[in-house]
Amino acid sequence: MHEPHLYEELAADLVGLIERGTLKHGARFPSVRRLSEQRGVSVATVVQAYALLESRGMIEARPKSGHFVRARRAEGLREPTAPRPARGPIKVAVTEDAVDLMYATMSDPSLAPLGAACVSPELLPVRKLNGILASLVREVSDLGATYDGGGARPLRQMLARRAITWGVPLGEDDFVITVGASEALYLSLRAVTKPGDTIAVESPLYFGLMQLVSDLGLRAFEVPLHPRTGLDLDALQDALRAGPVRAVLTVPSFSNPIGSLMPPEARERLVKMLARDDIPLIEDDVYGDLSFDGTRPRPAKAFDRDRVLLCGSISKTLAPGYRVGWVAGGRHHAAIGRLKLARTLSTPAAPAMAVAEMLARGSYDRHLRRLRQTLAVQVAQYREAIATHFPAGTKVSDPQGGFVLWVELPAGADSLEIQGHALERGIAIAPGPIFAVRSRYRECLRINAGFPMTDRIGSAIRALGELCERATRGELR
Amino acid sequence: MHEPHLYEELAADLVGLIERGTLKHGARFPSVRRLSEQRGVSVATVVQAYALLESRGMIEARPKSGHFVRARRAEGLREPTAPRPARGPIKVAVTEDAVDLMYATMSDPSLAPLGAACVSPELLPVRKLNGILASLVREVSDLGATYDGGGARPLRQMLARRAITWGVPLGEDDFVITVGASEALYLSLRAVTKPGDTIAVESPLYFGLMQLVSDLGLRAFEVPLHPRTGLDLDALQDALRAGPVRAVLTVPSFSNPIGSLMPPEARERLVKMLARDDIPLIEDDVYGDLSFDGTRPRPAKAFDRDRVLLCGSISKTLAPGYRVGWVAGGRHHAAIGRLKLARTLSTPAAPAMAVAEMLARGSYDRHLRRLRQTLAVQVAQYREAIATHFPAGTKVSDPQGGFVLWVELPAGADSLEIQGHALERGIAIAPGPIFAVRSRYRECLRINAGFPMTDRIGSAIRALGELCERATRGELR
Repeated sequence: MHEPHLYEELAADLVGLIERGTLKHGARFPSVRRLSEQRGVSVATVVQAYALLESRGMIEARPKSGHFVRARRAEGLREPTAPRPARGPIKVAVTEDAVDLMYATMSDPSLAPLGAACVSPELLPVRKLNGILASLVREVSDLGATYDGGGARPLRQMLARRAITWGVPLGEDDFVITVGASEALYLSLRAVTKPGDTIAVESPLYFGLMQLVSDLGLRAFEVPLHPRTGLDLDALQDALRAGPVRAVLTVPSFSNPIGSLMPPEARERLVKMLARDDIPLIEDDVYGDLSFDGTRPRPAKAFDRDRVLLCGSISKTLAPGYRVGWVAGGRHHAAIGRLKLARTLSTPAAPAMAVAEMLARGSYDRHLRRLRQTLAVQVAQYREAIATHFPAGTKVSDPQGGFVLWVELPAGADSLEIQGHALERGIAIAPGPIFAVRSRYRECLRINAGFPMTDRIGSAIRALGELCERATRGELR
Repeated sequence: MHEPHLYEELAADLVGLIERGTLKHGARFPSVRRLSEQRGVSVATVVQAYALLESRGMIEARPKSGHFVRARRAEGLREPTAPRPARGPIKVAVTEDAVDLMYATMSDPSLAPLGAACVSPELLPVRKLNGILASLVREVSDLGATYDGGGARPLRQMLARRAITWGVPLGEDDFVITVGASEALYLSLRAVTKPGDTIAVESPLYFGLMQLVSDLGLRAFEVPLHPRTGLDLDALQDALRAGPVRAVLTVPSFSNPIGSLMPPEARERLVKMLARDDIPLIEDDVYGDLSFDGTRPRPAKAFDRDRVLLCGSISKTLAPGYRVGWVAGGRHHAAIGRLKLARTLSTPAAPAMAVAEMLARGSYDRHLRRLRQTLAVQVAQYREAIATHFPAGTKVSDPQGGFVLWVELPAGADSLEIQGHALERGIAIAPGPIFAVRSRYRECLRINAGFPMTDRIGSAIRALGELCERATRGELR
């Protein structure tokens, strides 16, 4: 874990002001002395912070005038097109080759990490978490000697406390601890559907969820995501009218890949809509803790504790390799528990208890505050780099949380082709078609912005931009 | 972990001699002085060892004559009846209530642990394993910061080395690390079948496997297990002739609950039989390390590396709560890897690496040597207690490994009724019907012998015997 210097924290704050639009393009920053007084930091710290932002191309120093918010190329970026509604449900076939390539290259350190959605290890307090785990298994020396029925109680207790702060009154017995959110989502889908059923899913849809839907033999009715406000509820209404929909699967907070955030009113409307036909809602909340402005979006579960199955994890914020997730399954809680027993029996207790301890100590929340700011900066930097190096006419999402960007290239580009060429140049990406039930999004790709913007990443984005340029001109075939 | 005293180790050796029939009922033991010289231990140690065996009712001291192997009631026990072959496949319905009761009471320390199949924590070196885990996560401070694709490589390397000693030449890339053998078996079944398929399973069948088969929507053709030699291959041949069988699922080494051990020739015949129709064999090997005589049965996988999916874990020998298992899927390896990604993505690396270290240091094998002897003694003691306290005509399995006993009560007893009454008296058991696809085994129950024979356990078996007696007389209804 990289402990940020004071000037880096200050820089991140300033970026926040730019990102949130408080300081617009052309606006003047306070003088060094004034900011130093306002913030109670040394003059040197302010100078370093300004220098950092200047080196990142976010502000410019004009001699004798001060520091100004730079005209940013990213401000000219348009958001990706909202997809068109589907005509009906379809049996899901996964774009196997591209997904296999994704997974095969997921842990390859020689590749620029623009593919898998993950935060750089250096931004995660895993050393601290491992220290807690080590103390824990030394103290409780028989930890692991027995199966752990419902999952680590200390973690369930902490989750119940947190849920209350999100506006969802849940108790420790409302949670099942799972092997990451992956297992939570799998058990949830399995609990409420049977093969051949139709479910409504968002589009574009995270390819891991696509695989689950495919494995379970389900038919998917794709409902478009608006790039900012998420699920198109009118399109969903049409889907519900078209035939029996057994469940709805969505990521209301910072959906992957498009980064949309459903407003609270939309969540409420969604839940009420589903209540009429008594349809369960599977809510994937893995990015919920990562809003750039620090506001924790209230889960849809807050509006219906019975029908909403809330799935979460710490894989996107703390330790992907710990494989700690959970599901609060509402009325499907018992069924999920039974399915879990038959599949993985129980979740390893020690890692889950270490996570509980991070939560209990407040270390997790302190870490989140820094991580959100860091990710806000990184996402802005990646957007700026894309605006600079990608072909004219490229559209990019503008998420308010999470750490992935959805890029829509000009017509003619084929991201599956680009994926191959990019891998040859040592760059991993996630091509658009793996996020689609039926063939679409060939001109789209997802870019992971979870790693700090180093020279290496900058060069990778430039090289990728050149590839995209050539793809758009049809030169890659 | 209880480090055995020298006299306990000596006692275990002597029990081994009795168990293996080297010393028969009525045989005289060496004098204290002679044994002390033979073994190079003190006279006091021999005296203590003899006293221990006497207190357990295994030997008797006759004044001025020495110590003799006691006439053992268990010697009069008959083995359970081999079940009759099924007429055809059947859709599996799990005896939910009884299974729910099993799971709900699994971790309840107030109950006498005759239910779930698990070894007493005091017999497991979990403290040592936890110590290794603690050192590991302190040394490799970013362990857990990333997803771990194929599963902990150090463990796969150690497994490959072990497999060679079992006569199965496998490499590290032939294994997928899983969340216990449960996930391995689930992924294997899922990889080779689709809903509605028929598979051949052994009967009685471990209820966890039954649940998997049921969840996957499979039809099961039950093939009887002979109490000693396992799968009835003639009955299996009939099942294969009756219609397409998509896979065979069996536990060749110390099957649960009946404890049978398939001889090597039978394994070879089984594998050849399946090769003719190119049918995959799913081999559950979780008890393979627990033979009482220390011989490691050669897995069926040794006879066909392509078609056999070998599933194992350390849950029965080392640390159930670590949830570390594996599958060597042969030609289904890639499919299993892909299914795993969609379900749990990866297995936590740190616990698996701690297990690898136990294997590398030889600590696991040293532990196994002691554990096998201890379990041999316990199984003998439990059989003796059952012979003493259960109704006349009770039949009990005589396993040569593992730690569960299959008890067949006289006609008229109903183990589902007994389960309820036993729980009221603080005793957990596993009733027979949960091991059957169709309604049978009502007069059977499984007893866990994984805990040392203490006064508490002895009293529980006596009380259970009385309940069984009353059940046989129809007095429980």
